[in-house]
Amino acid sequence: MAEDQITRITITPVAFHDLPLLNTVGVHEPFALRAIVEVETADGLLGLGETYGDEAHLARLHAAGDALIGTGVFDVNEAAARVTRALATDTGTGGHGMSGMVTGSSTADRVLSPFEVALLDIQGRTVGRPVVDLLGGAVRDRVAYSGYLFYKWAGHPGQPDDDWGAALDPDGIVRQAHRLIDGYGFGALKLKGGVFPPAEEIAAIRALRAEFPGLPLRLDPNAAWTVPTSVMVGEALAGVLEYLEDPTPGIDGMAEVARRVPMPLATNMCVVAFDDVPPAVRAGSVAVILSDHHFWGGLRRSQLLGGLCRTFGLGLSMHSNSHLGISLAAMTHLAAATPNLDYACDTHWPWKRADEDVIKPGVLAFTDGAVAVPTGPGLGVELDRDALGRLHEQYLSCGLRSRDDTGYMRSIDPSYTAVSPRW
Amino acid sequence: MAEDQITRITITPVAFHDLPLLNTVGVHEPFALRAIVEVETADGLLGLGETYGDEAHLARLHAAGDALIGTGVFDVNEAAARVTRALATDTGTGGHGMSGMVTGSSTADRVLSPFEVALLDIQGRTVGRPVVDLLGGAVRDRVAYSGYLFYKWAGHPGQPDDDWGAALDPDGIVRQAHRLIDGYGFGALKLKGGVFPPAEEIAAIRALRAEFPGLPLRLDPNAAWTVPTSVMVGEALAGVLEYLEDPTPGIDGMAEVARRVPMPLATNMCVVAFDDVPPAVRAGSVAVILSDHHFWGGLRRSQLLGGLCRTFGLGLSMHSNSHLGISLAAMTHLAAATPNLDYACDTHWPWKRADEDVIKPGVLAFTDGAVAVPTGPGLGVELDRDALGRLHEQYLSCGLRSRDDTGYMRSIDPSYTAVSPRW
Ligand SMILES: [Mg+2]
Ligand SMILES: [Mg+2]
Repeated sequence: MAEDQITRITITPVAFHDLPLLNTVGVHEPFALRAIVEVETADGLLGLGETYGDEAHLARLHAAGDALIGTGVFDVNEAAARVTRALATDTGTGGHGMSGMVTGSSTADRVLSPFEVALLDIQGRTVGRPVVDLLGGAVRDRVAYSGYLFYKWAGHPGQPDDDWGAALDPDGIVRQAHRLIDGYGFGALKLKGGVFPPAEEIAAIRALRAEFPGLPLRLDPNAAWTVPTSVMVGEALAGVLEYLEDPTPGIDGMAEVARRVPMPLATNMCVVAFDDVPPAVRAGSVAVILSDHHFWGGLRRSQLLGGLCRTFGLGLSMHSNSHLGISLAAMTHLAAATPNLDYACDTHWPWKRADEDVIKPGVLAFTDGAVAVPTGPGLGVELDRDALGRLHEQYLSCGLRSRDDTGYMRSIDPSYTAVSPRW
Repeated sequence: MAEDQITRITITPVAFHDLPLLNTVGVHEPFALRAIVEVETADGLLGLGETYGDEAHLARLHAAGDALIGTGVFDVNEAAARVTRALATDTGTGGHGMSGMVTGSSTADRVLSPFEVALLDIQGRTVGRPVVDLLGGAVRDRVAYSGYLFYKWAGHPGQPDDDWGAALDPDGIVRQAHRLIDGYGFGALKLKGGVFPPAEEIAAIRALRAEFPGLPLRLDPNAAWTVPTSVMVGEALAGVLEYLEDPTPGIDGMAEVARRVPMPLATNMCVVAFDDVPPAVRAGSVAVILSDHHFWGGLRRSQLLGGLCRTFGLGLSMHSNSHLGISLAAMTHLAAATPNLDYACDTHWPWKRADEDVIKPGVLAFTDGAVAVPTGPGLGVELDRDALGRLHEQYLSCGLRSRDDTGYMRSIDPSYTAVSPRW
């Protein structure tokens, strides 16, 4: 079946505008970086993947891509083996596009992910079926996402204010939530915390609860708190949060908090690879795992994570980074095929400019906080080569080569240091 | 996509000749029962599945089959949900074709299995790809099976001796092993134990070791032994067995044996459903799980089991019952797509008559103990309607309606009782 063999892989780094969103390791830089992966076969089919754009990650993508030439598009097992071999001598730990917030994920899985998505995209095009059908079929035709609230400055320093304005206190967060809900219809809200002293973030959550009485709320300080602080926050927000995400670092710390707070704990930090699952299960660290196909090795391996969660009685949600439409399509297909998806998925979608993407517009749209599962073959999205070229030019000219929220913050406030736990 | 909807499901019970193979609950009856599942779509495609033929299981298959009409062939998630709903009021525990040896497997998974296999068969035919490609692609093009040794009588009582003759002591087992290896080339051997006092079975294993110095050996007494007896056997066979399978009943008993014997313990009895995995992992009951798509809910769910094993550092092997060619094809596709398959798979294949099957001959053949993965679309095997008709007539005339090794043994030896543990 030589006609289905991979003959060319193109990896294009892109940059798109980002806003000064605050988190516990710093602040988002003016541009977010991604890499767009195109996989072409001998018979002229094209599959798409999207992943982190950090320089170290790009180097690994190229090493893996070279190794994948000649693989058949249905040979996902073989592709995984080749990626693992291609990275066997790689001992680096950075370059995961997470600015230090997630460090333990599997390099091989992180690199495999966009290729696996692209292979499924081509498989779907070959078969004339959406990717969701290759994953067992849709259990829902619309996937609910949550509105992702961030503390933010009014604009990047030295630039005019952006049109979202500042959100630095409960009022600002409530205002931001109204705009997100008005624009997208989100039925759940998540606040990125770890930015201000816990009392202020508790106040913000309480303000959201008062303003949106029925809405599920989550708080994610990215391990900014000690165990006692986490317990204090957990007790203060009893009955208010549907889950508390990564209050404190590590499997053992999370386990101690889990024993002492009334709500479920969720994570995309202490369980980020298959090797983390057994110790976390043993310790009882978390009740909910946030899947993310970008670091769990693609869609099929994220389904395995879903099966692990179901088997061990863990809840399942979905994590997001700053991303473009290829990732949103992949996330939506995966979520649609996941029976035990218990929560609305995270997305950074509203924070990118509507006119900045690498896919042709029209397929992905939010209605009532949800995205309809694309029905076209494969991922159901088409590459916009002009837009890809523009965002690649923007990558070349923006000067950023790796995400560094902390370095950017220190360029503004030299006294800033990233410490975890901070409070 | 109405053309891919299921329009008809046909469930045909069949019987094929079986030999008086002994185990700890009795002896195989003169016929083994299976059910052949045909799934047809609006556009005329046909998919095949094979499962147990016990009467109670047949009733469940019919209930599930009725519920599946109208499902699309890619809607495996939906099919699983419908099967679960169709069986929601089913409180029966028997009818699993295991004659009491495996009782805890999930009814819904057991019933789903042949339909899931048939849907994958049709998907493969739609796509023009072998099922292994739908499972991630082949990591091996030949699947190794082990030679399955049984103590047996010379023939069924009241019938002429069969051409295998008796195997009731170490010499008989070694003779049988030679015939299996000469005929099939098996590179690993498994002895079904639990039939004679442990010392005799230890002697049989030692005789096999002396006769076949390099061959991996396994012993499976189907939980016939107490913990102390299991430990005694384990110590006696230190360095001889690649694994000891189900020496004693239950997750706790197995865990105690596991702590005290030198070789890995394997199971297809104390971990037979996803719900069994967490307690077995917690207790450390087993080092190897024998997958079996017939009771784990089909090929995709068996892949989930494979992923669970890999994640938790457990070995993976494959279990078999008396089966025909549709099952062998499905087992072979699954095994070929499973990177972490650590052992040669079990099969009862040599114990059925070569001229009794429901598929057209020619695709499945053993060379050097392995079966080449079928390369045709879907499972790669074709139904032989004449043969199906003959084996169905044989089902109607043979009088058996449920597997009952114990009842058959008691019809021969009224003093016989099935007890576990026996020694
Ligand atoms: Mg998080
Ligand atoms: Mg067994």
